[in-house]
Amino acid sequence: MGDRAETNSLFLTDLMTDQGIQVSWKTIVGDVHAHICAALIQAVERANVVVLTGGLGSTRDDCTRQAVAQMVGRPLRPRISTVRALKATYAFYGRPLNPRLRRQALVPVGAVVLENSMGTAPGFLCEWKDRLIIALPGVPHEAKTMFMEGVLPRLSPFFRGERRLEQRVFHTFGLSESELEERLFPLMGDNGTVDMGFLASPLGVAITMRRWKGKQVGMKKANQGSQDAFDHMCGSIRRILGECLYAEQAMSMEEVVGDLLSSRSLSLAVAESCTGGLIGHRLTQVPGSSHYLDRVCVCYSNEAKQEVLHVPATLIQRYGAVSRQVAEAMAHGARTISRTQIGLSVTGIAGPGGGTRKKPVGLVYVGFDGRHGPITRKYRFHGDRSSIKLGASQAALDVLRRSLLRDKRR
Amino acid sequence: MGDRAETNSLFLTDLMTDQGIQVSWKTIVGDVHAHICAALIQAVERANVVVLTGGLGSTRDDCTRQAVAQMVGRPLRPRISTVRALKATYAFYGRPLNPRLRRQALVPVGAVVLENSMGTAPGFLCEWKDRLIIALPGVPHEAKTMFMEGVLPRLSPFFRGERRLEQRVFHTFGLSESELEERLFPLMGDNGTVDMGFLASPLGVAITMRRWKGKQVGMKKANQGSQDAFDHMCGSIRRILGECLYAEQAMSMEEVVGDLLSSRSLSLAVAESCTGGLIGHRLTQVPGSSHYLDRVCVCYSNEAKQEVLHVPATLIQRYGAVSRQVAEAMAHGARTISRTQIGLSVTGIAGPGGGTRKKPVGLVYVGFDGRHGPITRKYRFHGDRSSIKLGASQAALDVLRRSLLRDKRR
Repeated sequence: MGDRAETNSLFLTDLMTDQGIQVSWKTIVGDVHAHICAALIQAVERANVVVLTGGLGSTRDDCTRQAVAQMVGRPLRPRISTVRALKATYAFYGRPLNPRLRRQALVPVGAVVLENSMGTAPGFLCEWKDRLIIALPGVPHEAKTMFMEGVLPRLSPFFRGERRLEQRVFHTFGLSESELEERLFPLMGDNGTVDMGFLASPLGVAITMRRWKGKQVGMKKANQGSQDAFDHMCGSIRRILGECLYAEQAMSMEEVVGDLLSSRSLSLAVAESCTGGLIGHRLTQVPGSSHYLDRVCVCYSNEAKQEVLHVPATLIQRYGAVSRQVAEAMAHGARTISRTQIGLSVTGIAGPGGGTRKKPVGLVYVGFDGRHGPITRKYRFHGDRSSIKLGASQAALDVLRRSLLRDKRR
Repeated sequence: MGDRAETNSLFLTDLMTDQGIQVSWKTIVGDVHAHICAALIQAVERANVVVLTGGLGSTRDDCTRQAVAQMVGRPLRPRISTVRALKATYAFYGRPLNPRLRRQALVPVGAVVLENSMGTAPGFLCEWKDRLIIALPGVPHEAKTMFMEGVLPRLSPFFRGERRLEQRVFHTFGLSESELEERLFPLMGDNGTVDMGFLASPLGVAITMRRWKGKQVGMKKANQGSQDAFDHMCGSIRRILGECLYAEQAMSMEEVVGDLLSSRSLSLAVAESCTGGLIGHRLTQVPGSSHYLDRVCVCYSNEAKQEVLHVPATLIQRYGAVSRQVAEAMAHGARTISRTQIGLSVTGIAGPGGGTRKKPVGLVYVGFDGRHGPITRKYRFHGDRSSIKLGASQAALDVLRRSLLRDKRR
């Protein structure tokens, strides 16, 4: 119905790209039989493999299996082994398998059933002409597990001898899209086999380099020199980006920071104000973060800053809660109370209210306190409350990352 | 390139639905001229209005304006007033308007330019046959502002006399999709003019009711009785859902909780363990949350739980950090140290590691401490670390919401 973010395609794209398969088109429609059919007809025209997610459950609006059955021209039949598995699953939850729930066992005749080890509705996989149609449930972790266990091993025959995609993604923070293009543009030359793409967000700018390799339509033989040229180009990009490059491929800033902290056996305490817990949330998205993250103090009120982090009241009175001085005192306080090696802090104005001419919405200070003394940085972010919080959390983690890197080089 | 979530369509859908306009189809393609053209041709065939976002910037991969120009068969020309505005904007940042940046002023002949009050690249609006094609920048806050200021006032002529959509969304927490269907299904009867849809996520299950009103193809006159029937049906849904209904339309749980706290002038302190700051992050997404949220303590380590929240070491030793007893002590500690009226806590196992047979991954306890004493609740979530954290944060906010509602009724 258009009002929810579609995210299943993100991990599907990552997993496909790892296999050298390009995801070129996404279509999102509601639980409407005619729309699913129309989308499916267009999709099989342009792609070898079509993946559908969602609409396989037991509620009345789920109609993906019917659409696929119509498209491939085969009737739906209940798969006995699946009925048995569903019975067992529902019995475990103390519920009988009523006719509505039983519909989840319907698959087009001749389809391969993909078992759902994480939930109830199974997926299925249907060959049609030289195309492969894959139907997965909408629940992300069910779809992901099913794709990795049941689909990936069956994909390669559909791409044998086809050209394959090679992709490198460079994640940067600290330079704008046009500054990056100015620096990287000269590298491209007239190389027609490589694409460079930019995507800006509050997390920074991601640069994607893509190259086609192997047999290519209209190309007599594979260009053997191009792999070296591509690797060389990626090397040059790394050199030019320097410290602005924080991660490659699917790595996130919180994983990079986590690895740096883990490998040096350092512990961290965080003091947040305007980010409200987002830095803690991001750090704890990484499994094992309990080994380096001791605690996070979200001190929204001035009283909490004084009581919890021992920020002197005089500093807040003289410079204001959003100031370089308070950021530094917050980082120091976090480090001291928790007896960790590192303290990290953020204070700023997330908006939409609370800004003044001297301290506008989007003004953010980051503080860092480690064994080589304090560092503070000033930022000015734009956008809505959510973007400013995300940008501020990224800036704080980037200050932490750069400090850890510099610390290593001493 | 398939590896980022597309979110512009979410606020566009909300804004369109408010106008009674149905968003029926989304297409996502890369910065590839041929793909954008193909998507555009399919889109104008099925819809009155087509909105494009992204690809209007100054980098080499931006090619949306070229695709639209080709589709409508009109050349791109620089708009003088836009060149002047771009010059002024870049001068403000101390940069000259080089030819690359100047390309942002190109629009198809005859298009209406949509000024970008939040950034650089303007959008534009193009009539073609009886269709309206709207090109907006990819940066969310720029696209949103431009759509509200420049597009919404121009939309209504394109929908005059068309049938209009009425939609109600009911957000629930605590019942499964199939339990909800069992309860709500009897309401539907054989009413063919109303749709009911379900969407499950770690935040709960959203139920969407939709009805078409006004002139409808194949219908002699508008069914005047149906508005009453629809309102009556929505009323019945509210009654049946009872306390499981936490919000309607675009309201979020954090906004509902924020309103309850604000209207009663209550203050809150939060103690998080496995959610790692996510509850604080969500509460502070709401502007003005500083009025009721005093502080959030993310205590990952047992030491932090003892030091910061004064959880007795004996409780942790006897029952473990993930237990009803520790959840209760954390909520009490948060309330006491911050001198707020309410303390809220979460402790659990987010996984993927750390689970045992007796305490599996996904086990979560929520604690609440208010003036009528403590409440604890036990949950078992499924899915990956991210889903478990999200589910746990929602459960905690739901406990808070229900307690505030009950408190009111005493």
